[in-house]
Amino acid sequence: MKRLSIVLLSVASVAAGSLGLRAQQQGGDGPRYTNGANLVRPANYREWTFLGSGLGMTYEAEQARPQSSPRFTNVFVNPSSYRSFMQTGKWPDRTTFLLEIRGSGGDASINKAGRFQTDFLALEAEVKDARFPDGWAFFDFGSARSLKEAAAPLAGEQVAGCIECHTKHTAVERTFVQFYPTLLEVARRMGTLKPGH
Amino acid sequence: MKRLSIVLLSVASVAAGSLGLRAQQQGGDGPRYTNGANLVRPANYREWTFLGSGLGMTYEAEQARPQSSPRFTNVFVNPSSYRSFMQTGKWPDRTTFLLEIRGSGGDASINKAGRFQTDFLALEAEVKDARFPDGWAFFDFGSARSLKEAAAPLAGEQVAGCIECHTKHTAVERTFVQFYPTLLEVARRMGTLKPGH
Repeated sequence: MKRLSIVLLSVASVAAGSLGLRAQQQGGDGPRYTNGANLVRPANYREWTFLGSGLGMTYEAEQARPQSSPRFTNVFVNPSSYRSFMQTGKWPDRTTFLLEIRGSGGDASINKAGRFQTDFLALEAEVKDARFPDGWAFFDFGSARSLKEAAAPLAGEQVAGCIECHTKHTAVERTFVQFYPTLLEVARRMGTLKPGH
Repeated sequence: MKRLSIVLLSVASVAAGSLGLRAQQQGGDGPRYTNGANLVRPANYREWTFLGSGLGMTYEAEQARPQSSPRFTNVFVNPSSYRSFMQTGKWPDRTTFLLEIRGSGGDASINKAGRFQTDFLALEAEVKDARFPDGWAFFDFGSARSLKEAAAPLAGEQVAGCIECHTKHTAVERTFVQFYPTLLEVARRMGTLKPGH
């Protein structure tokens, strides 16, 4: 451990530091918008809290066959909302989920079976925010080749399927906590799972 | 955005806050030991930076057949070392990797194909720390039913295979960066990949 010396700071830098820290504590990792509703793609979501991965998951019956190169789906949430959920089993306002889609590789290096994660393919988001009519919104930042800096909330037919599925089949609020094992334990303990889960 | 008011703080609380922040910045997420070498299991590793997941990965030829219930392997690293790697393509001293092993589930809820992560099964660690003879050590915290609070570094025949494989087949230092896509990009750019990778 390095020895730390106490340094006197000017009142100005103190105030600035204190505000920066407080902003973080108050949800500095919450969603940022342009034009009031277009979600700015979080640059550092890979440093957010990882909830779980799926491989080759699909809810479309016509795709329910073995895939030669299945995709990984990684889900991340902003850290302050994760910590809140771990205490309460519920999502606070301004919670942001990122769904990152990646390719998979197989026979390579020491790996003789199974799959590991490869190229970034696409990025989507779901946000809980009271500014949206029913409190939630979905966003599509597009694919790797044409990734958007900000995305408008999906609307109309674009989002009807998302809303139906995230209402009927999710374990907690509009989120698939049944697929995120560390959250599922907490929701069970806190009694925040929807009936049937 | 909430309006933040500037508050005057006493010099004492300022100094304390400044030191706390500086300790974090200087690697407050580094390894902690008992008896000088036994790694204390990091309680909050699920809030560390996620590097990648594998499903059903194995380097043992006899297991290279389809598995009915393959395991997920999630790799996390302490956040300050992640940020350092993203700048340099190298691992700083006191970097800690956690390998979390989880079960997988299939046909459930809306999922018609593919696998998602389920129960926690086991936890292992690898640490880069100059306190160990060759600068690296491996630890096994055991399985879910008998998870250790602290683990001694693996020694002798327990670790010979780990060392050989993590020396011969790893892409950067003793780490399998070839399986962690965000790191692989950086190592390529920084020229820190070993020859052949």
